[in-house]
Amino acid sequence: MLGIPSEARQAFRAGTVTPTSGIADGYAQANLVAVPADWAYDMLLFTQRNPKPCPVLDVTDAGSPVTELAPDADLRTDLPRYRLWHNGKLIDEPTDARAVWRDDLVAFLIGCSFTFEGALREAKVPLRHLDQGRNVPMYRTNRPCRPAGRLAGPLVVSMRPIPADLVAAAVQVTARVPAVHGAPVHVGSPATLGITDLGSPDYGEPVEFTAGDVPVFWACGVTPQAALERSAVPFAITHSPGHMFVTDVPEATYRLG
Amino acid sequence: MLGIPSEARQAFRAGTVTPTSGIADGYAQANLVAVPADWAYDMLLFTQRNPKPCPVLDVTDAGSPVTELAPDADLRTDLPRYRLWHNGKLIDEPTDARAVWRDDLVAFLIGCSFTFEGALREAKVPLRHLDQGRNVPMYRTNRPCRPAGRLAGPLVVSMRPIPADLVAAAVQVTARVPAVHGAPVHVGSPATLGITDLGSPDYGEPVEFTAGDVPVFWACGVTPQAALERSAVPFAITHSPGHMFVTDVPEATYRLG
Repeated sequence: MLGIPSEARQAFRAGTVTPTSGIADGYAQANLVAVPADWAYDMLLFTQRNPKPCPVLDVTDAGSPVTELAPDADLRTDLPRYRLWHNGKLIDEPTDARAVWRDDLVAFLIGCSFTFEGALREAKVPLRHLDQGRNVPMYRTNRPCRPAGRLAGPLVVSMRPIPADLVAAAVQVTARVPAVHGAPVHVGSPATLGITDLGSPDYGEPVEFTAGDVPVFWACGVTPQAALERSAVPFAITHSPGHMFVTDVPEATYRLG
Repeated sequence: MLGIPSEARQAFRAGTVTPTSGIADGYAQANLVAVPADWAYDMLLFTQRNPKPCPVLDVTDAGSPVTELAPDADLRTDLPRYRLWHNGKLIDEPTDARAVWRDDLVAFLIGCSFTFEGALREAKVPLRHLDQGRNVPMYRTNRPCRPAGRLAGPLVVSMRPIPADLVAAAVQVTARVPAVHGAPVHVGSPATLGITDLGSPDYGEPVEFTAGDVPVFWACGVTPQAALERSAVPFAITHSPGHMFVTDVPEATYRLG
Protein backbone atom coordinates (compact mmCIF):
# COMPACT_ATOMS: atom_id res chain seq x y z
CA MET A 1 0.00 0.00 0.00
CA LEU A 2 3.05 2.25 0.10
CA GLY A 3 2.85 2.21 -3.70
CA ILE A 4 0.05 4.80 -3.74
CA PRO A 5 1.02 8.35 -2.66
CA SER A 6 -2.08 9.03 -0.53
CA GLU A 7 -1.73 5.69 1.26
CA ALA A 8 1.99 6.22 1.87
CA ARG A 9 1.22 9.63 3.40
CA GLN A 10 -1.55 8.07 5.50
CA ALA A 11 0.94 5.51 6.84
CA PHE A 12 3.45 8.24 7.74
CA ARG A 13 0.69 10.28 9.38
CA ALA A 14 -0.17 7.18 11.43
CA GLY A 15 3.41 6.76 12.62
CA THR A 16 5.35 4.71 10.05
CA VAL A 17 8.95 5.97 9.90
CA THR A 18 11.14 4.99 6.95
CA PRO A 19 13.26 6.55 4.23
CA THR A 20 11.05 6.99 1.17
CA SER A 21 13.34 5.68 -1.59
CA GLY A 22 11.39 3.01 -3.47
CA ILE A 23 8.03 4.17 -2.11
CA ALA A 24 5.21 5.29 -4.46
CA ASP A 25 7.29 4.44 -7.50
CA GLY A 26 6.44 6.69 -10.45
CA TYR A 27 5.48 9.71 -8.34
CA ALA A 28 7.58 12.76 -7.57
CA GLN A 29 9.02 13.14 -4.09
CA ALA A 30 10.00 16.46 -2.55
CA ASN A 31 12.35 17.99 -0.02
CA LEU A 32 10.70 20.29 2.53
CA VAL A 33 12.16 23.48 3.94
CA ALA A 34 9.84 25.81 5.83
CA VAL A 35 11.15 29.18 7.05
CA PRO A 36 9.52 32.23 8.63
CA ALA A 37 8.03 34.70 6.12
CA ASP A 38 10.81 37.23 6.81
CA TRP A 39 13.33 34.66 5.49
CA ALA A 40 11.19 33.52 2.55
CA TYR A 41 12.64 35.97 0.01
CA ASP A 42 16.20 34.95 0.82
CA MET A 43 15.25 31.28 0.48
CA LEU A 44 13.35 31.78 -2.78
CA LEU A 45 16.27 33.76 -4.21
CA PHE A 46 18.69 31.05 -3.00
CA THR A 47 16.68 28.43 -4.89
CA GLN A 48 16.51 30.62 -8.00
CA ARG A 49 20.27 31.15 -7.94
CA ASN A 50 21.01 27.46 -7.28
CA PRO A 51 18.47 25.62 -9.44
CA LYS A 52 20.46 22.39 -9.72
CA PRO A 53 20.29 21.50 -5.98
CA CYS A 54 17.10 23.54 -5.39
CA PRO A 55 14.55 22.98 -8.20
CA VAL A 56 11.37 24.45 -6.69
CA LEU A 57 8.19 22.45 -7.31
CA ASP A 58 5.91 24.61 -5.14
CA VAL A 59 5.92 27.39 -2.54
CA THR A 60 3.03 27.65 -0.08
CA ASP A 61 1.33 30.80 1.15
CA ALA A 62 2.54 31.82 4.62
CA GLY A 63 1.03 29.60 7.32
CA SER A 64 -0.60 27.17 4.92
CA PRO A 65 0.40 23.51 5.29
CA VAL A 66 -1.24 22.73 1.93
CA THR A 67 0.52 22.34 -1.43
CA GLU A 68 -0.94 21.89 -4.88
CA LEU A 69 1.43 18.94 -5.33
CA ALA A 70 -0.98 16.90 -3.17
CA PRO A 71 -4.03 18.96 -2.27
CA ASP A 72 -5.36 16.60 0.40
CA ALA A 73 -2.04 16.30 2.23
CA ASP A 74 -0.95 18.13 5.39
CA LEU A 75 2.72 19.12 5.32
CA ARG A 76 2.80 19.10 9.14
CA THR A 77 2.00 15.40 9.51
CA ASP A 78 2.48 13.57 6.21
CA LEU A 79 6.26 13.20 6.10
CA PRO A 80 7.82 10.24 7.94
CA ARG A 81 10.30 12.39 9.87
CA TYR A 82 11.12 16.09 10.27
CA ARG A 83 14.02 18.18 11.47
CA LEU A 84 13.54 21.20 13.72
CA TRP A 85 16.18 23.94 13.52
CA HIS A 86 16.84 26.83 15.91
CA ASN A 87 19.54 29.36 15.02
CA GLY A 88 21.06 26.92 12.54
CA LYS A 89 21.26 24.08 15.06
CA LEU A 90 19.38 20.80 14.73
CA ILE A 91 17.40 20.44 17.95
CA ASP A 92 14.87 17.69 17.28
CA GLU A 93 13.70 15.09 14.73
CA PRO A 94 9.96 14.73 15.37
CA THR A 95 7.68 12.50 13.32
CA ASP A 96 4.85 15.07 13.55
CA ALA A 97 5.44 18.82 13.19
CA ARG A 98 2.07 20.14 14.36
CA ALA A 99 3.32 21.17 17.79
CA VAL A 100 6.13 23.29 16.34
CA TRP A 101 4.53 24.65 13.15
CA ARG A 102 4.05 28.43 13.05
CA ASP A 103 1.57 30.67 11.27
CA ASP A 104 4.33 32.63 9.55
CA LEU A 105 6.04 29.63 7.91
CA VAL A 106 6.46 29.52 4.14
CA ALA A 107 7.10 25.97 2.91
CA PHE A 108 9.30 25.24 -0.09
CA LEU A 109 8.88 21.90 -1.86
CA ILE A 110 12.05 21.06 -3.78
CA GLY A 111 12.51 18.21 -6.25
CA CYS A 112 14.16 15.00 -4.97
CA SER A 113 16.34 12.52 -6.83
CA PHE A 114 14.30 9.59 -5.47
CA THR A 115 11.84 10.65 -8.17
CA PHE A 116 14.04 9.34 -11.00
CA GLU A 117 15.03 6.08 -9.32
CA GLY A 118 12.14 4.23 -10.99
CA ALA A 119 13.39 5.39 -14.39
CA LEU A 120 16.93 4.27 -13.48
CA ARG A 121 15.62 0.81 -12.58
CA GLU A 122 13.68 0.66 -15.85
CA ALA A 123 17.02 1.30 -17.59
CA LYS A 124 18.46 -1.67 -15.61
CA VAL A 125 20.63 0.59 -13.46
CA PRO A 126 20.92 -1.09 -10.02
CA LEU A 127 20.29 1.00 -6.90
CA ARG A 128 22.73 -0.26 -4.27
CA HIS A 129 21.19 1.60 -1.32
CA LEU A 130 17.77 0.10 -2.01
CA ASP A 131 19.21 -3.39 -2.49
CA GLN A 132 21.03 -2.99 0.83
CA GLY A 133 17.99 -1.56 2.64
CA ARG A 134 19.74 1.72 3.47
CA ASN A 135 19.03 5.42 3.18
CA VAL A 136 20.95 7.07 0.32
CA PRO A 137 24.31 8.60 1.40
CA MET A 138 24.65 12.39 1.10
CA TYR A 139 27.74 14.59 1.47
CA ARG A 140 28.58 18.26 1.93
CA THR A 141 31.01 19.31 -0.82
CA ASN A 142 33.67 21.99 -1.16
CA ARG A 143 31.52 23.74 -3.81
CA PRO A 144 29.87 26.90 -2.51
CA CYS A 145 26.37 27.72 -3.64
CA ARG A 146 25.76 31.21 -5.02
CA PRO A 147 24.71 33.22 -1.92
CA ALA A 148 21.34 34.98 -1.71
CA GLY A 149 20.75 37.72 0.86
CA ARG A 150 21.60 36.24 4.27
CA LEU A 151 21.83 32.65 2.96
CA ALA A 152 25.02 30.88 1.94
CA GLY A 153 26.34 27.34 2.16
CA PRO A 154 27.91 24.40 0.36
CA LEU A 155 26.42 22.21 -2.33
CA VAL A 156 25.19 18.90 -0.90
CA VAL A 157 25.16 15.82 -3.15
CA SER A 158 23.61 12.37 -3.02
CA MET A 159 25.79 9.47 -4.20
CA ARG A 160 24.88 6.24 -5.94
CA PRO A 161 27.45 3.58 -6.92
CA ILE A 162 26.82 2.84 -10.61
CA PRO A 163 28.42 0.04 -12.68
CA ALA A 164 30.91 1.66 -15.06
CA ASP A 165 29.13 0.43 -18.17
CA LEU A 166 25.84 1.98 -16.98
CA VAL A 167 27.13 5.44 -16.04
CA ALA A 168 26.23 6.89 -19.44
CA ALA A 169 22.71 5.44 -19.21
CA ALA A 170 22.32 6.90 -15.70
CA VAL A 171 23.34 10.33 -17.01
CA GLN A 172 20.94 10.17 -19.92
CA VAL A 173 17.97 8.94 -17.89
CA THR A 174 18.35 11.56 -15.17
CA ALA A 175 19.16 14.45 -17.54
CA ARG A 176 15.56 14.16 -18.73
CA VAL A 177 14.16 15.31 -15.37
CA PRO A 178 15.84 18.60 -14.40
CA ALA A 179 12.99 19.39 -11.97
CA VAL A 180 14.32 16.62 -9.72
CA HIS A 181 18.02 17.59 -10.01
CA GLY A 182 18.59 16.22 -13.52
CA ALA A 183 21.98 14.96 -14.69
CA PRO A 184 24.76 14.24 -12.18
CA VAL A 185 26.96 17.16 -11.14
CA HIS A 186 29.99 14.89 -10.90
CA VAL A 187 31.07 11.36 -11.86
CA GLY A 188 33.94 9.61 -10.03
CA SER A 189 36.70 11.29 -7.99
CA PRO A 190 35.05 12.18 -4.65
CA ALA A 191 38.25 14.01 -3.66
CA THR A 192 37.56 16.70 -6.27
CA LEU A 193 34.37 17.51 -4.36
CA GLY A 194 36.29 17.53 -1.07
CA ILE A 195 34.80 14.20 0.02
CA THR A 196 37.52 12.25 1.81
CA ASP A 197 35.60 9.19 2.98
CA LEU A 198 32.57 7.82 1.13
CA GLY A 199 32.01 5.54 4.14
CA SER A 200 31.17 8.53 6.37
CA PRO A 201 28.33 10.45 4.74
CA ASP A 202 27.13 13.71 6.32
CA TYR A 203 23.51 12.58 5.92
CA GLY A 204 21.88 9.18 5.28
CA GLU A 205 23.82 5.93 5.49
CA PRO A 206 26.97 4.51 3.86
CA VAL A 207 26.41 2.07 1.03
CA GLU A 208 28.61 -0.81 -0.19
CA PHE A 209 30.21 -0.75 -3.63
CA THR A 210 30.29 -3.73 -5.98
CA ALA A 211 33.52 -4.23 -7.95
CA GLY A 212 33.46 -1.97 -11.02
CA ASP A 213 31.04 0.56 -9.47
CA VAL A 214 31.80 4.26 -9.92
CA PRO A 215 30.50 6.87 -7.45
CA VAL A 216 28.04 9.17 -9.22
CA PHE A 217 26.94 12.40 -7.51
CA TRP A 218 23.68 14.27 -7.97
CA ALA A 219 22.85 17.72 -6.56
CA CYS A 220 20.70 17.20 -3.47
CA GLY A 221 17.73 19.00 -1.93
CA VAL A 222 19.40 18.80 1.49
CA THR A 223 21.50 21.76 0.27
CA PRO A 224 19.08 24.28 1.88
CA GLN A 225 19.58 22.51 5.23
CA ALA A 226 23.34 23.09 4.97
CA ALA A 227 22.55 26.77 4.28
CA LEU A 228 20.24 26.96 7.30
CA GLU A 229 23.13 25.70 9.42
CA ARG A 230 25.81 27.90 7.88
CA SER A 231 23.61 31.01 8.02
CA ALA A 232 22.18 30.37 11.50
CA VAL A 233 18.58 30.85 10.38
CA PRO A 234 16.55 31.55 13.57
CA PHE A 235 13.84 28.94 12.94
CA ALA A 236 13.12 26.30 10.32
CA ILE A 237 11.37 22.97 9.84
CA THR A 238 12.64 20.56 7.18
CA HIS A 239 12.23 16.93 6.28
CA SER A 240 14.80 14.54 7.75
CA PRO A 241 17.23 13.60 4.93
CA GLY A 242 15.84 10.69 2.91
CA HIS A 243 12.42 11.00 4.57
CA MET A 244 10.65 12.91 1.84
CA PHE A 245 7.21 14.32 1.05
CA VAL A 246 5.50 11.95 -1.40
CA THR A 247 3.45 13.97 -3.91
CA ASP A 248 0.53 13.07 -6.17
CA VAL A 249 2.41 14.32 -9.25
CA PRO A 250 3.48 11.58 -11.70
CA GLU A 251 7.22 11.63 -12.35
CA ALA A 252 6.43 11.74 -16.08
CA THR A 253 5.03 15.27 -15.60
CA TYR A 254 8.56 16.55 -15.10
CA ARG A 255 10.18 14.51 -17.85
CA LEU A 256 11.58 16.36 -20.88
CA GLY A 257 12.43 15.29 -24.40
CA MET B 1 27.95 46.04 -35.18
CA LEU B 2 24.59 45.23 -33.61
CA GLY B 3 25.62 41.59 -33.97
CA ILE B 4 27.83 41.71 -30.86
CA PRO B 5 26.01 42.09 -27.52
CA SER B 6 28.39 44.66 -25.98
CA GLU B 7 28.28 46.78 -29.12
CA ALA B 8 24.50 46.61 -29.33
CA ARG B 9 24.25 47.75 -25.70
CA GLN B 10 26.74 50.54 -26.42
CA ALA B 11 24.55 51.71 -29.31
CA PHE B 12 21.44 51.73 -27.10
CA ARG B 13 23.35 53.57 -24.37
CA ALA B 14 24.31 56.15 -27.00
CA GLY B 15 20.70 56.69 -28.05
CA THR B 16 19.77 54.11 -30.71
CA VAL B 17 16.12 53.08 -30.25
CA THR B 18 14.85 49.92 -31.96
CA PRO B 19 13.12 46.66 -31.17
CA THR B 20 15.82 44.05 -30.58
CA SER B 21 14.46 41.13 -32.62
CA GLY B 22 17.24 40.06 -34.98
CA ILE B 23 19.97 41.85 -33.01
CA ALA B 24 22.97 39.95 -31.57
CA ASP B 25 21.79 36.71 -33.13
CA GLY B 26 22.82 33.70 -31.05
CA TYR B 27 22.73 35.51 -27.71
CA ALA B 28 19.97 35.41 -25.10
CA GLN B 29 17.76 38.46 -24.69
CA ALA B 30 15.87 39.29 -21.53
CA ASN B 31 12.77 41.08 -20.28
CA LEU B 32 13.37 43.55 -17.44
CA VAL B 33 11.07 44.18 -14.52
CA ALA B 34 12.45 46.13 -11.56
CA VAL B 35 10.30 46.58 -8.46
CA PRO B 36 10.96 48.00 -4.99
CA ALA B 37 12.45 45.49 -2.53
CA ASP B 38 9.18 45.28 -0.59
CA TRP B 39 7.53 43.87 -3.75
CA ALA B 40 10.42 41.58 -4.69
CA TYR B 41 9.13 38.51 -2.87
CA ASP B 42 5.73 38.74 -4.55
CA MET B 43 7.41 39.13 -7.95
CA LEU B 44 9.84 36.25 -7.37
CA LEU B 45 6.98 34.02 -6.23
CA PHE B 46 4.91 35.11 -9.25
CA THR B 47 7.73 34.03 -11.56
CA GLN B 48 8.16 30.72 -9.71
CA ARG B 49 4.44 30.00 -10.00
CA ASN B 50 4.29 31.02 -13.66
CA PRO B 51 7.52 29.66 -15.13
CA LYS B 52 6.29 29.47 -18.71
CA PRO B 53 5.81 33.26 -19.16
CA CYS B 54 8.36 34.16 -16.45
CA PRO B 55 11.52 32.01 -16.72
CA VAL B 56 13.96 33.87 -14.46
CA LEU B 57 17.51 34.16 -15.79
CA ASP B 58 18.82 36.40 -12.99
CA VAL B 59 17.72 38.53 -10.04
CA THR B 60 19.90 41.44 -8.92
CA ASP B 61 20.66 42.50 -5.38
CA ALA B 62 18.58 45.51 -4.30
CA GLY B 63 19.85 48.74 -5.86
CA SER B 64 22.39 47.06 -8.12
CA PRO B 65 22.03 47.76 -11.86
CA VAL B 66 24.48 44.92 -12.60
CA THR B 67 23.60 41.38 -13.68
CA GLU B 68 25.84 38.37 -14.16
CA LEU B 69 24.20 37.89 -17.57
CA ALA B 70 26.42 40.75 -18.84
CA PRO B 71 28.77 41.92 -16.08
CA ASP B 72 29.90 45.11 -17.84
CA ALA B 73 26.38 46.29 -18.65
CA ASP B 74 24.32 48.88 -16.79
CA LEU B 75 20.63 47.98 -16.60
CA ARG B 76 19.71 51.67 -16.26
CA THR B 77 21.11 52.71 -19.65
CA ASP B 78 21.71 49.68 -21.86
CA LEU B 79 18.19 48.87 -23.04
CA PRO B 80 16.84 50.78 -26.06
CA ARG B 81 13.64 51.88 -24.30
CA TYR B 82 12.08 51.60 -20.84
CA ARG B 83 8.64 51.91 -19.31
CA LEU B 84 8.06 53.74 -16.05
CA TRP B 85 5.07 52.65 -13.96
CA HIS B 86 3.36 54.45 -11.05
CA ASN B 87 0.50 52.70 -9.27
CA GLY B 88 0.04 50.34 -12.19
CA LYS B 89 -0.17 53.15 -14.76
CA LEU B 90 2.32 53.66 -17.58
CA ILE B 91 3.57 57.21 -17.18
CA ASP B 92 6.67 57.44 -19.38
CA GLU B 93 8.84 55.57 -21.90
CA PRO B 94 12.34 56.97 -21.41
CA THR B 95 15.39 55.72 -23.31
CA ASP B 96 17.56 56.13 -20.19
CA ALA B 97 16.38 55.13 -16.70
CA ARG B 98 19.11 56.72 -14.57
CA ALA B 99 16.97 59.68 -13.51
CA VAL B 100 14.19 57.42 -12.19
CA TRP B 101 16.17 54.43 -10.83
CA ARG B 102 15.92 53.87 -7.08
CA ASP B 103 18.29 52.32 -4.56
CA ASP B 104 15.66 49.85 -3.41
CA LEU B 105 14.93 48.35 -6.85
CA VAL B 106 15.36 44.61 -7.42
CA ALA B 107 15.68 43.79 -11.12
CA PHE B 108 14.35 40.56 -12.60
CA LEU B 109 15.77 39.41 -15.93
CA ILE B 110 13.31 37.07 -17.62
CA GLY B 111 13.93 34.96 -20.72
CA CYS B 112 12.68 36.34 -24.06
CA SER B 113 11.46 34.48 -27.14
CA PHE B 114 13.67 36.61 -29.41
CA THR B 115 16.42 34.31 -28.13
CA PHE B 116 15.17 31.34 -30.16
CA GLU B 117 14.47 33.23 -33.37
CA GLY B 118 17.94 32.44 -34.72
CA ALA B 119 17.27 28.73 -34.18
CA LEU B 120 13.90 29.10 -35.94
CA ARG B 121 15.59 30.71 -38.94
CA GLU B 122 18.20 27.92 -39.00
CA ALA B 123 15.26 25.51 -39.26
CA LYS B 124 13.99 27.56 -42.24
CA VAL B 125 11.02 28.92 -40.31
CA PRO B 126 10.31 32.43 -41.65
CA LEU B 127 9.85 35.30 -39.17
CA ARG B 128 7.18 37.55 -40.66
CA HIS B 129 7.65 40.46 -38.22
CA LEU B 130 11.37 40.67 -39.04
CA ASP B 131 10.74 40.41 -42.78
CA GLN B 132 8.19 43.22 -42.43
CA GLY B 133 10.44 45.37 -40.21
CA ARG B 134 7.98 45.36 -37.33
CA ASN B 135 8.02 44.69 -33.60
CA VAL B 136 6.50 41.30 -32.70
CA PRO B 137 2.77 41.50 -31.81
CA MET B 138 1.79 40.60 -28.23
CA TYR B 139 -1.66 40.04 -26.71
CA ARG B 140 -3.24 39.82 -23.28
CA THR B 141 -5.16 36.52 -23.06
CA ASN B 142 -8.13 35.29 -21.05
CA ARG B 143 -5.83 32.88 -19.17
CA PRO B 144 -5.13 34.02 -15.62
CA CYS B 145 -1.68 33.47 -14.17
CA ARG B 146 -1.46 31.78 -10.80
CA PRO B 147 -1.52 34.70 -8.31
CA ALA B 148 1.33 35.31 -5.86
CA GLY B 149 0.85 37.52 -2.84
CA ARG B 150 -0.43 40.89 -4.10
CA LEU B 151 0.30 40.08 -7.77
CA ALA B 152 -2.21 38.72 -10.27
CA GLY B 153 -2.86 39.17 -13.96
CA PRO B 154 -3.41 37.54 -17.33
CA LEU B 155 -0.98 35.52 -19.41
CA VAL B 156 0.50 37.62 -22.22
CA VAL B 157 1.60 35.88 -25.42
CA SER B 158 3.70 36.79 -28.44
CA MET B 159 2.42 35.64 -31.84
CA ARG B 160 4.26 34.59 -34.97
CA PRO B 161 2.51 33.52 -38.19
CA ILE B 162 4.06 30.16 -39.14
CA PRO B 163 3.50 28.25 -42.42
CA ALA B 164 1.33 25.23 -41.60
CA ASP B 165 3.96 22.75 -42.74
CA LEU B 166 6.55 24.30 -40.42
CA VAL B 167 4.45 24.47 -37.24
CA ALA B 168 5.79 21.14 -35.99
CA ALA B 169 9.38 22.25 -36.61
CA ALA B 170 8.72 25.52 -34.76
CA VAL B 171 7.38 23.56 -31.78
CA GLN B 172 10.35 21.22 -31.71
CA VAL B 173 12.98 23.95 -32.08
CA THR B 174 11.53 26.14 -29.34
CA ALA B 175 10.74 23.26 -26.95
CA ARG B 176 14.50 22.84 -26.57
CA VAL B 177 14.89 26.21 -24.82
CA PRO B 178 12.44 26.35 -21.88
CA ALA B 179 14.50 29.16 -20.27
CA VAL B 180 13.26 31.48 -23.01
CA HIS B 181 9.59 30.35 -22.88
CA GLY B 182 10.08 27.02 -24.68
CA ALA B 183 7.32 25.41 -26.75
CA PRO B 184 4.25 27.43 -27.78
CA VAL B 185 1.36 27.59 -25.32
CA HIS B 186 -1.17 27.54 -28.14
CA VAL B 187 -1.32 26.91 -31.89
CA GLY B 188 -4.15 28.37 -34.02
CA SER B 189 -7.56 29.60 -32.77
CA PRO B 190 -6.87 33.03 -31.24
CA ALA B 191 -10.49 33.11 -30.01
CA THR B 192 -9.76 30.33 -27.53
CA LEU B 193 -7.30 32.69 -25.87
CA GLY B 194 -9.84 35.51 -25.92
CA ILE B 195 -8.02 37.33 -28.73
CA THR B 196 -10.66 38.82 -31.03
CA ASP B 197 -8.50 40.76 -33.48
CA LEU B 198 -4.95 39.74 -34.36
CA GLY B 199 -4.64 43.10 -36.15
CA SER B 200 -4.88 44.99 -32.84
CA PRO B 201 -2.17 43.69 -30.53
CA ASP B 202 -1.97 44.99 -26.96
CA TYR B 203 1.80 45.46 -27.31
CA GLY B 204 4.14 45.65 -30.32
CA GLU B 205 2.84 45.94 -33.88
CA PRO B 206 0.44 43.95 -36.10
CA VAL B 207 2.05 41.65 -38.64
CA GLU B 208 0.76 40.47 -42.03
CA PHE B 209 -0.03 36.79 -42.66
CA THR B 210 0.96 34.94 -45.79
CA ALA B 211 -1.62 32.45 -47.17
CA GLY B 212 -1.30 29.17 -45.26
CA ASP B 213 0.20 30.77 -42.14
CA VAL B 214 -1.13 29.65 -38.76
CA PRO B 215 -0.91 31.95 -35.69
CA VAL B 216 1.39 30.38 -33.11
CA PHE B 217 1.48 31.78 -29.58
CA TRP B 218 4.36 31.71 -27.11
CA ALA B 219 4.20 32.73 -23.45
CA CYS B 220 5.67 36.23 -23.18
CA GLY B 221 7.83 38.03 -20.64
CA VAL B 222 5.55 41.07 -20.85
CA THR B 223 3.25 39.07 -18.54
CA PRO B 224 4.74 40.75 -15.41
CA GLN B 225 3.86 44.16 -16.91
CA ALA B 226 0.22 43.10 -17.17
CA ALA B 227 0.42 42.05 -13.50
CA LEU B 228 1.95 45.41 -12.52
CA GLU B 229 -1.03 47.08 -14.15
CA ARG B 230 -3.69 44.75 -12.74
CA SER B 231 -2.20 44.89 -9.24
CA ALA B 232 -1.46 48.64 -9.19
CA VAL B 233 2.13 48.17 -8.06
CA PRO B 234 3.26 51.57 -6.65
CA PHE B 235 6.48 51.84 -8.66
CA ALA B 236 8.25 49.81 -11.33
CA ILE B 237 10.64 50.15 -14.25
CA THR B 238 10.45 47.66 -17.13
CA HIS B 239 11.72 47.37 -20.66
CA SER B 240 9.40 48.64 -23.38
CA PRO B 241 7.85 45.58 -25.08
CA GLY B 242 10.16 44.28 -27.81
CA HIS B 243 13.03 46.52 -26.63
CA MET B 244 14.96 43.94 -24.67
CA PHE B 245 18.13 43.62 -22.65
CA VAL B 246 20.77 41.93 -24.84
CA THR B 247 22.89 39.59 -22.69
CA ASP B 248 26.35 38.08 -23.17
CA VAL B 249 24.98 34.55 -22.66
CA PRO B 250 25.01 32.36 -25.80
CA GLU B 251 21.56 31.01 -26.62
CA ALA B 252 23.11 27.52 -26.72
CA THR B 253 23.70 27.75 -22.95
CA TYR B 254 19.96 27.37 -22.41
CA ARG B 255 19.38 24.68 -25.01
CA LEU B 256 18.37 21.23 -23.81
CA GLY B 257 18.55 17.79 -25.39
